[in-house]
Amino acid sequence: MTTDYAPQAANYVQLTPLSFLQRSATVFPQRLSVVYGDRQYTWKETLDRCQKLASALGNAGVKQGDTVAVLAFNTPELFEAHFGVPFSGAVLNTINTRLDDETVSYILGHGKAKALIVDAELLPVATPGLKALGGDIPIIVINDSQAGDMPAPDAALSTIDYEIFLQTGSDDFVGLMPNDEWQSLSLNYTSGTTGRPKGVLYHHRGSYLMSMGTIAGWQMPMHPVYLYSVPMFHCNGWGHAWTLAALAGTCVCLRAVDTRVMFDLMEKHQVTHFGGAPIVLNMLANAPADHQKRFDREINVMTAGAPPPASVLQSMNKLGFKVIHVYGLTETFGHVLMAAPQVEWEEKSDAERAELHARQGVCFPMSEAVDVLVGDPPQPVPHNGEVLGEIVLRGNTIMKGYLDNVEATNEAMHDGWFWTGDLAVVHPDGYVQIKDRAKDIIISGGENISSVEIENALYKHEAVAEAAVVAMPDEKWGESPCAFVTLREGFEASEQEIIDHVGSLIARFKRPKRVVFGALPKTATGKIQKYALRQDLQKS
Amino acid sequence: MTTDYAPQAANYVQLTPLSFLQRSATVFPQRLSVVYGDRQYTWKETLDRCQKLASALGNAGVKQGDTVAVLAFNTPELFEAHFGVPFSGAVLNTINTRLDDETVSYILGHGKAKALIVDAELLPVATPGLKALGGDIPIIVINDSQAGDMPAPDAALSTIDYEIFLQTGSDDFVGLMPNDEWQSLSLNYTSGTTGRPKGVLYHHRGSYLMSMGTIAGWQMPMHPVYLYSVPMFHCNGWGHAWTLAALAGTCVCLRAVDTRVMFDLMEKHQVTHFGGAPIVLNMLANAPADHQKRFDREINVMTAGAPPPASVLQSMNKLGFKVIHVYGLTETFGHVLMAAPQVEWEEKSDAERAELHARQGVCFPMSEAVDVLVGDPPQPVPHNGEVLGEIVLRGNTIMKGYLDNVEATNEAMHDGWFWTGDLAVVHPDGYVQIKDRAKDIIISGGENISSVEIENALYKHEAVAEAAVVAMPDEKWGESPCAFVTLREGFEASEQEIIDHVGSLIARFKRPKRVVFGALPKTATGKIQKYALRQDLQKS
Repeated sequence: MTTDYAPQAANYVQLTPLSFLQRSATVFPQRLSVVYGDRQYTWKETLDRCQKLASALGNAGVKQGDTVAVLAFNTPELFEAHFGVPFSGAVLNTINTRLDDETVSYILGHGKAKALIVDAELLPVATPGLKALGGDIPIIVINDSQAGDMPAPDAALSTIDYEIFLQTGSDDFVGLMPNDEWQSLSLNYTSGTTGRPKGVLYHHRGSYLMSMGTIAGWQMPMHPVYLYSVPMFHCNGWGHAWTLAALAGTCVCLRAVDTRVMFDLMEKHQVTHFGGAPIVLNMLANAPADHQKRFDREINVMTAGAPPPASVLQSMNKLGFKVIHVYGLTETFGHVLMAAPQVEWEEKSDAERAELHARQGVCFPMSEAVDVLVGDPPQPVPHNGEVLGEIVLRGNTIMKGYLDNVEATNEAMHDGWFWTGDLAVVHPDGYVQIKDRAKDIIISGGENISSVEIENALYKHEAVAEAAVVAMPDEKWGESPCAFVTLREGFEASEQEIIDHVGSLIARFKRPKRVVFGALPKTATGKIQKYALRQDLQKS
Repeated sequence: MTTDYAPQAANYVQLTPLSFLQRSATVFPQRLSVVYGDRQYTWKETLDRCQKLASALGNAGVKQGDTVAVLAFNTPELFEAHFGVPFSGAVLNTINTRLDDETVSYILGHGKAKALIVDAELLPVATPGLKALGGDIPIIVINDSQAGDMPAPDAALSTIDYEIFLQTGSDDFVGLMPNDEWQSLSLNYTSGTTGRPKGVLYHHRGSYLMSMGTIAGWQMPMHPVYLYSVPMFHCNGWGHAWTLAALAGTCVCLRAVDTRVMFDLMEKHQVTHFGGAPIVLNMLANAPADHQKRFDREINVMTAGAPPPASVLQSMNKLGFKVIHVYGLTETFGHVLMAAPQVEWEEKSDAERAELHARQGVCFPMSEAVDVLVGDPPQPVPHNGEVLGEIVLRGNTIMKGYLDNVEATNEAMHDGWFWTGDLAVVHPDGYVQIKDRAKDIIISGGENISSVEIENALYKHEAVAEAAVVAMPDEKWGESPCAFVTLREGFEASEQEIIDHVGSLIARFKRPKRVVFGALPKTATGKIQKYALRQDLQKS
């Protein structure tokens, strides 16, 4: 019955995180946006530099919808690329800095990069890929004074220094805004533990809402000071570059994770927030006394990638850190679930509370729905903390799809859900807890054994610093659990002692049959590479 | 070049504030949602009641797109209507409780209400309108134990008690979500100072983003305790019912503004946030010592409707209130600009800081653009704090349009902007300051005189509690300023003294020619009704 008005320019603006930068540069032009070593920028300067970058890319031939790749550490240039690349109309493809040259070559080719911004230290790893592309795209090199000795660039490549490249941009260029909020903003390749990396497409709408939901869910005030310890190449650094622009916060850049540098920066810049995988928290919690710092003020920490062990949570609390555990995937723009604390948790013991915080939890404010489904046709599991199913998600921070891979896209999204591949239970309080990746379940004598359950038991041994459990072929049982363990410095434990320890905590048939001691292989984001452990077992 | 995937159910969910309620009821089912006297509800209960309301409305014949009107004070039923009515697919039309029966009749007819939820005390004012509608729509009566003696309802009307009506809803009804985020969510009539009230249409997308932007801009943490002193019928109470659902906060209901009750509720429920026109702040700041309370903790106050006088800001600060001044209109879902504090303001004197805070300011995070335009074709005014222009706005929290009024809609929105009708300057720091409504400018001897400038001068006199200036016909000058003043209790001042006071502060030609002492007529939201003052002048 109401007059049906169509949207118009005054009342319908495409959602994009690029508008956050424009607002902060207008309203808080003099506030610090980015600090890195002796360099610092205001929001006005950051807007100017991002618009120059966009203009320079356009002048260099980058067109609407093209891909611009970035292979860089968390320096100001990578922060700027989060705005400058989309301001040119292009799609930002940040590449994992720890990949081998063959995978980088695959990504540059698959993503059809039309320009590359690359840290001088990483140019060698990109060189084969650049040559494969024909070598005729602009190669913009970040020459960072904090870097070590630089290898000489390949003579066949023509490169330009990032700062000189910026100068080729026009002073009066105004950043392009998307015509449609569904337009692609960025392209993030999965870690590719199960094959070739897949290119996950983010849209402007999702990244805008990701920032808004993060502010609400993480309770971020205006002007946070955020230490960028999470690699910005990973889910666009959980979207926090854009979130910082929304809040006119300060991004404290960090070239490499180093606990001494991190504690120094936290103190020097009065850091209020940072993020990191549990392994980073573990390093901070166990940092040497000569540089570990304790803070009177509360510093907010977001952790993801694996459930934080109770001991790490407790140590972090003592240092003044308030840790929130979140869950997400590259396909979900980063964190979409959180172990949102409940008031009644405050009365629990430290150990109980740590268990509650280690769960993947409940929806972030911008996440529309989560469920755990099992069976055919799939049905929600009962909320009993026991029945396993697959976590499914729905919301505006789910990817558009995988670049040029309709089959994988259709496999990941169907029946109204995004299927995560993570196996979980739902507890009576509605909180989701991952028991395993589908492929990480160990099937022994017909019984499903969760590798995570065994790992949790291993972490309760005082000598265990890190642990991972995978299936090992077993003549009698089909599969049996094999544990890989790194011992804490100064501690010792025998294989039998570890096996007995686990057997004292969980069902005896779940005990590892074998324990291998040593360092664990990890991905760039600190995740333990179980596929590498499985390969080791095949070889042995 | 990227595979162009269409949105699908997994990755594109229509934005609506209704999803906030579903999340809070799922994640924080046991937290308090609403308290009112002895009544209190949890978020789970609120979801249940809202779904029952929606189901009952559907059973009573309300259909998708119908209007459901509510004429009620800030009691739990009005809070529930913000979810229950749209859960039925209908559009929520909250009506100003201080309107006369003729205007209520106009609104019920113009909005084509298909049901009315009405407080028993307000039924008489709705009765003529209901009879005009034919009297055959469901009339759902809120029987509030906090109300005074009730008039007997008109025998010709058939009514049903709100709680009994809820029982007619189904227990297993699930609230309907919009098929399109652009769908109308609510209908809010303007105050109609310049003619018949106009019906402003809000959409789901705008209200969702209004809540998200409010959380970011007002720095709201999870679980705020919000005292609902702003009428929920006014711009849907600035959208805060929905924002509270997003944060699983607690809504403390307030039937009528009473400083004793307000201070008591703030203490009893540990209120963290509330809103109110400057007149409400003035009442709190000047409340009698026997019930005025001072708080150690900071209570956040949002004020709008008029610039808060410096004296009020200072008194409020002393009581423990942190006041933020915001600006918006019914057409903008409430607040879209804010006097966002800058770090350098902290070094200013109290008086200077109060001046800065009294400006309308800069964009809220969800507002996309503001400008002040003058001339033909319209151009931005220079940022010199002097040149007057009209405030224009752009963003996703601008109305769809006026119900059944294409002409007024086209007049309000064109050339990519919503035109506010408010005249303002832009200061060198980019902050907008209103000098007047277009129609409130006094043109005396060819010179424009801002009534607000005179009012600000009047407020600096210690005897002045409230002041309003309008144009009065003047044989010599065309128009001249006439001041209406309410004196503070226990203070005295003569007409000449007031005129001289103003003359000592601003240009002498801007002095009021006449001062009228007495109470000032106000709208339901505490705005002084200048049109009534002008009418008085015509009569005298």
